[in-house]
Amino acid sequence: MITVLRIGHRAGRDPRIATHCALTSRALGAERIVYTGEKDSDMEKSVRKIVDNWGGPFEITYEKSWRKVLKDSGAKSVHLTMYGLPLQNEISKIRKARDVIIIIGGEKVPMEVYNTVDHNVAVTSQPHSEVASLAVFLHEYQQGKGLDKKFKNAKMSLVPQKCGKKIIN
Amino acid sequence: MITVLRIGHRAGRDPRIATHCALTSRALGAERIVYTGEKDSDMEKSVRKIVDNWGGPFEITYEKSWRKVLKDSGAKSVHLTMYGLPLQNEISKIRKARDVIIIIGGEKVPMEVYNTVDHNVAVTSQPHSEVASLAVFLHEYQQGKGLDKKFKNAKMSLVPQKCGKKIIN
Repeated sequence: MITVLRIGHRAGRDPRIATHCALTSRALGAERIVYTGEKDSDMEKSVRKIVDNWGGPFEITYEKSWRKVLKDSGAKSVHLTMYGLPLQNEISKIRKARDVIIIIGGEKVPMEVYNTVDHNVAVTSQPHSEVASLAVFLHEYQQGKGLDKKFKNAKMSLVPQKCGKKIIN
Repeated sequence: MITVLRIGHRAGRDPRIATHCALTSRALGAERIVYTGEKDSDMEKSVRKIVDNWGGPFEITYEKSWRKVLKDSGAKSVHLTMYGLPLQNEISKIRKARDVIIIIGGEKVPMEVYNTVDHNVAVTSQPHSEVASLAVFLHEYQQGKGLDKKFKNAKMSLVPQKCGKKIIN
């Protein structure tokens, strides 16, 4: 079971980034995303619409306290941060855990998060994107198998094409 | 040489996504990003500020015509699209090329792009994020070596930490 926890969502400022995080979580193998910060019903709706059309299982839920989410999860916790230890050195240890909760932040992640989690992991020690870090982490954690994830109860799916688009409804 | 070409930028709507694409390109091994659509000096400035602080080489440039960029590049062209052929099947062929230009789009990519490029490649056949697709593609194309990229002339860099932050100025 892979959970993503996104902390500090700002409804006005980053609905698209949040949606990208949620859809990346779903597409690359996570079963759910929990977010904290500002509740954002429009963002939730747009994610649920994708799940409804393209299949699941995938859940998005809002929680007030990241502390509670971490405490209740029981999974190995991995905070993705440019300040952490290199992914390429840490990933084999993390893969041993059956359940993982991946924490990604907006701009200001409290130092308490760094101190609470099992691993602070860097997808490069450079500033870039929580969406990119999440994608590479999910890909590596599953050793590429995230690309082959199957979805259930999909109304729509694609047939891969060399050129053009083929959608099945 | 890895180039990223982002087509159809909309300055009002997606400056943060565009910045994430540019910084992901830089962090994970591309030497430059070219974008088309609406010229966006603020977005360019925020990317150049990162390059100035954290090192390069990395360039961001605006071009009016994606056709011209593709024509002039001479590199193997790879369009990332959920409609394309699976990354895991295509990547070994693409790795044989020394120079690659990776095309990512906003919402409406003209069908002419699909017909012009050497490869249409899907990072899963699911809707998610061009930032995530770009990250996984760059990671796979370089067989993980994008994580070890070194930067020159950096004013700032990090020392990876198990917990906490260590910046060198």
